[in-house]
Amino acid sequence: MKKKIITISREFGSGGRTIAKALATRLGIAYYDKELVKQMAIDTGLDQQFVSDESDYAPSKSIFAYNLQEGMLGGLCAADILWDVQRKVILQLADKEPCVIVGRNADYILRDRTDCLNAFIHADTSFRSERIVRLYGTTEKTPEERLKDKDAKRRINYKHFTEKEWGMSQNYHISLNSGVIGIDKCVDIIADLFTGQSNLK
Amino acid sequence: MKKKIITISREFGSGGRTIAKALATRLGIAYYDKELVKQMAIDTGLDQQFVSDESDYAPSKSIFAYNLQEGMLGGLCAADILWDVQRKVILQLADKEPCVIVGRNADYILRDRTDCLNAFIHADTSFRSERIVRLYGTTEKTPEERLKDKDAKRRINYKHFTEKEWGMSQNYHISLNSGVIGIDKCVDIIADLFTGQSNLK
Repeated sequence: MKKKIITISREFGSGGRTIAKALATRLGIAYYDKELVKQMAIDTGLDQQFVSDESDYAPSKSIFAYNLQEGMLGGLCAADILWDVQRKVILQLADKEPCVIVGRNADYILRDRTDCLNAFIHADTSFRSERIVRLYGTTEKTPEERLKDKDAKRRINYKHFTEKEWGMSQNYHISLNSGVIGIDKCVDIIADLFTGQSNLK
Repeated sequence: MKKKIITISREFGSGGRTIAKALATRLGIAYYDKELVKQMAIDTGLDQQFVSDESDYAPSKSIFAYNLQEGMLGGLCAADILWDVQRKVILQLADKEPCVIVGRNADYILRDRTDCLNAFIHADTSFRSERIVRLYGTTEKTPEERLKDKDAKRRINYKHFTEKEWGMSQNYHISLNSGVIGIDKCVDIIADLFTGQSNLK
């Protein structure tokens, strides 16, 4: 079966999003990230900024505060509702057209499809620290704390909903260290796997 | 720094050894696996079959039986001695010449070098089951039991000596699912990373 979807999971600051965007542009296929969040927000009726903050991370204090504020909906907490909507939107997008989907546990959500190429992008702390400061500026936290915090949230979120370990090679078809291999080369490798599919089944 | 060493870690039956051999041949560099075991056996004075059986796996009943039979050497058990010799031999080989080293926690042993490209090869159970029966024949155990058993031993061995999780993407520069990507394509990708090193540092 030909691959028509690429999912990109990534450590914070590894350049996974940049790689995903470059892949979508090069391959001429759709890219879903903010667009996905927007669609989710429309479907849930939840506040868009809230969805953007919470959809890729572990259930946090703010989501519990949201529950207290808004109450439970049909016995489900906001995190469960968000997961259901996220799952539904991703399944719809995958059915709709070839695309690149960043984060949001798409590798797991689409696990029953045989036309997905699942990639995980990671890099050493020093590479990622330099990159987030350059791209997003400094904050009151050290870059290392910011990486640890965001990665922990993604790890907990993945474990909570998939019962699998975030970052385990076996969850993905290809995992790449973007710091050592280079962001452009990561794009080359994944694009080549997607287009030169004689060896993909 | 140019890469001069490739380490290949692998799930049993994934074709990691085949990929390693093909890489060494294509790149015209040395290949260490049985040769490494032989060297280790010479250095330790331990029985070569014993070294071959134990060097890549968790300390097992047989290694404890060996200890009982042979006694402790200088307060160290056979597994510790084997680890020290294995470490020493791998460090020497890496100093000696460009090479491909299969298994034996070489990615961890050579972690202070910046000239290693560390790869992990894995594949789905069905792909590996079919492959081990085709290559190694059947045994009294099911193929799935054999995979589970060998992988568990490798996982425990890696954890015991490195305190890291075997198969975590972050331990390697590249991880590939050989069942989906294809063994030949895995060789192409790793060889290209090793030779076309404009993006490697």
